[in-house]
Amino acid sequence: MKKKVPQATVHRLSLYARYLGELEAQGEDYVSSERLGEGVGTNGAQVRKDLSFFDRFGIPGRGYPVSFLRKRLANILGVGDRVWRVAVVGAGRLGAALVGYSVFEKQSFHFVAILDNDPGKIGTRVNGLEVGDIRDLRGIVSSQNVEVAVITVPVHSAQQVADMLVEAGVRALLNFAPAKLDVSPHIVLRNVDLAVELEGLSFHLINS
Amino acid sequence: MKKKVPQATVHRLSLYARYLGELEAQGEDYVSSERLGEGVGTNGAQVRKDLSFFDRFGIPGRGYPVSFLRKRLANILGVGDRVWRVAVVGAGRLGAALVGYSVFEKQSFHFVAILDNDPGKIGTRVNGLEVGDIRDLRGIVSSQNVEVAVITVPVHSAQQVADMLVEAGVRALLNFAPAKLDVSPHIVLRNVDLAVELEGLSFHLINS
Repeated sequence: MKKKVPQATVHRLSLYARYLGELEAQGEDYVSSERLGEGVGTNGAQVRKDLSFFDRFGIPGRGYPVSFLRKRLANILGVGDRVWRVAVVGAGRLGAALVGYSVFEKQSFHFVAILDNDPGKIGTRVNGLEVGDIRDLRGIVSSQNVEVAVITVPVHSAQQVADMLVEAGVRALLNFAPAKLDVSPHIVLRNVDLAVELEGLSFHLINS
Repeated sequence: MKKKVPQATVHRLSLYARYLGELEAQGEDYVSSERLGEGVGTNGAQVRKDLSFFDRFGIPGRGYPVSFLRKRLANILGVGDRVWRVAVVGAGRLGAALVGYSVFEKQSFHFVAILDNDPGKIGTRVNGLEVGDIRDLRGIVSSQNVEVAVITVPVHSAQQVADMLVEAGVRALLNFAPAKLDVSPHIVLRNVDLAVELEGLSFHLINS
């Protein structure tokens, strides 16, 4: 890559890849930057700028080759030809639902472990995976080659669990606990903060 | 309000309110804009700018009164002293998990209905709610005064479900389907797009 890619560009790359998949399913061979932009709610100039971080994909006079660009974007996004090994910590409703949620498998995120500290849950099965004991976290991360962890524990345990995961060698965290986690800058951290989403929604409801 | 509040400000108001709740629990009476900013990963100038959209909350020489400001922010965010009535469409794993997820109740979002089109699910119970038939959507929205809907249907049905909900009178949609929904601008729409989150995570994993 030429330089640091902005977060917003990475976000749009996902949307481009998804829209290209739709065009591919419709049998389209080429797409202009204008149409690709329109399909995801932006414009052609933005598309060209976003893609220029990586390569020249367009063919003058024809546009972008749909199938080729979709595959290249999947590889750039790290969801093309590899699989990420994922553990969920927190086998409550949300954790159990995510383990069975097809979006993860579709994006090459493969669940290999689910852990909890509740003796009533340890040993039960969730979508084919046996719930492990959080005390065995380090051994499970190592033996299962876990690279990514999904945190679905209550807010008061989230930081402790994050620390344990990082110490065990996990490189990326997807955090669903409504907490601001403090992790080393070399760890990839994404937060899905439903409380903040809901407050954004209610703010616009009462002000619309 | 003086003028249109940026999305990023609304997002930070949620984080301020959460941090103020922590300070309140620790028995703090006042907080400076610098400390409030630090607590959510920004600075004092940003805090003062964000709050200036609404009112003057600070007391010269003492800072912001913690408990008062937390309550005011909750009201500004629409989660203070009212309850939003919510229906979930899609009684699969994710929909069922969300109905039992405490974050919603804590943010004043109260589930009053869950709907599906699968005869095998209709009539079963999820966290105390009976799964209704999606064909009765209009009647249920009206009789239950549903204001907000959570969409957890497969991607290929998401737009159709969104159209039905808007037509039935729902004012806000929280969409978990990995689809770009097209709704009238007076509808409040928030997307929780896990596919995009996962791709952002894998992008940073392979580029770190």
